[in-house]
Amino acid sequence: MERIVYLNGEFIVESEAKVSVFDRGFLFADAVYEVTAVLGGKLIDHQGHLARLERSSKELGIKMPVTGDQLMDIQRELIKRNDLVEGGIYLQLTRGDEGDRDFSYSDDIEPTLVLFTQARSLINSPKTQSGIKVISFDDIRWRRRDIKTTSLLPACMAKHVAHAAGAEDVWLIEDGFVTEGGSSNVYIVTQGNVLVTRPLSNDILHGITRASLMKLAQELNLTIEERLFTIEEAYDAKEAFISSATTFVWPVVAIDDKPIGNGKPGDIALKLRDIYIKTALELAE
Amino acid sequence: MERIVYLNGEFIVESEAKVSVFDRGFLFADAVYEVTAVLGGKLIDHQGHLARLERSSKELGIKMPVTGDQLMDIQRELIKRNDLVEGGIYLQLTRGDEGDRDFSYSDDIEPTLVLFTQARSLINSPKTQSGIKVISFDDIRWRRRDIKTTSLLPACMAKHVAHAAGAEDVWLIEDGFVTEGGSSNVYIVTQGNVLVTRPLSNDILHGITRASLMKLAQELNLTIEERLFTIEEAYDAKEAFISSATTFVWPVVAIDDKPIGNGKPGDIALKLRDIYIKTALELAE
Repeated sequence: MERIVYLNGEFIVESEAKVSVFDRGFLFADAVYEVTAVLGGKLIDHQGHLARLERSSKELGIKMPVTGDQLMDIQRELIKRNDLVEGGIYLQLTRGDEGDRDFSYSDDIEPTLVLFTQARSLINSPKTQSGIKVISFDDIRWRRRDIKTTSLLPACMAKHVAHAAGAEDVWLIEDGFVTEGGSSNVYIVTQGNVLVTRPLSNDILHGITRASLMKLAQELNLTIEERLFTIEEAYDAKEAFISSATTFVWPVVAIDDKPIGNGKPGDIALKLRDIYIKTALELAE
Repeated sequence: MERIVYLNGEFIVESEAKVSVFDRGFLFADAVYEVTAVLGGKLIDHQGHLARLERSSKELGIKMPVTGDQLMDIQRELIKRNDLVEGGIYLQLTRGDEGDRDFSYSDDIEPTLVLFTQARSLINSPKTQSGIKVISFDDIRWRRRDIKTTSLLPACMAKHVAHAAGAEDVWLIEDGFVTEGGSSNVYIVTQGNVLVTRPLSNDILHGITRASLMKLAQELNLTIEERLFTIEEAYDAKEAFISSATTFVWPVVAIDDKPIGNGKPGDIALKLRDIYIKTALELAE
């Protein structure tokens, strides 16, 4: 059965969900996006994703064509029409299409908004049990990683290299320090049980799941240090893990073929994951 | 009258030229492109653009769905069907569409190829007479600018700021040195009549027009230095100019509101432009 996709005010079958080749999302990657998890047919961290979408589009001067309430309605309708119980909703907002290709754009251009669902097992992901292997990779992305744009080619390239090397993902390195995963925020737990993650700046995405995890870690009275760390410090860590909207928390059990800790998913990672999912289910909309 | 666009083997009217929202060009900027000038209904520097397209797609592992000869035929057919005398042909090659969104991709995915024409006066562009004003701007792009991808949001953002400031374009600055224009290579002529331009590396696009101009400059016995230069050196230059496929050479008469030389298009810029166009017309295919 075909998925039902939302495109510019209409719910249509996925095979008909097409955009003009003149759309600036296609020609210039002039677009922002969000991925929101769905558990039990409900949205996780919706308000956080909405706020980040509004921030991203404001940074680029892309108009929001719908209100937050309308967006909630669209997403609920998509969940219903696709019988989505668990997975994610992908949303992409492009600057739109003026019928030709020109770097310049007018300020009153009508944006393109598309949303589609992806059914996927999130809570019982096998990656939680096994943990994932990652490799370090040079971070060659642009400097505004705080804006969630579709300029994702470097991430695709990096992940392709990782997969070819038998790893699940990359940890990106810039100026000697770890920035992010291929599409996630990254964390280590030191041998002294300190949770370390890179502070927010234009160098990394301001993860919605990251924000929730930091709050939960505080409530657990974990010692948290938001600071730069090197890949060598990660090699020597007791635990390592990543977070993102649809992985929640995935333990990292090896970096560059070096086992982290005892080479098994770490206790703190698993604990944070459990509490995050429990809290998220309670707050799901 | 609607333009005729080439899309994956078919010539169709532009209003029907659409790609799936699952196309990786739309979702990930996983795509490369070329712009080839057309003068007198013929292609300028076709072989150079073809070679660069092949290099870009090879760097990313994107399959070329047509041969060079087939591409020539497609472009000639587009010129004919659109009665194009002067302007450009835009070509975009994306990794294709596997019916869903995933950073990962298989190696046998069928690429998407789209080409369309843009009628425009190139030889008698008013910008040649007036010259253009540019402003300096921080170069925040990714590190593989030698691959001609559609990750063009930073260029769009920079040009938008330039236009708002009453300038035509930007000169991008990284680590204190000028890299490129918003969509062009850049040059200065020192007070000692030395033509200076940044050497080729992953930091800049390897301009096809740049390659032709360097050859012509040698034939004119100009002293050429391929080296880094600062924006301050550009302020003090006798001349400044840009090159690209469809501007050929445009003189720069002011940078950051400072007049360059006497504030009028420079002699060497205009001479190189004339010879480039003359040679290009002779070699046009």
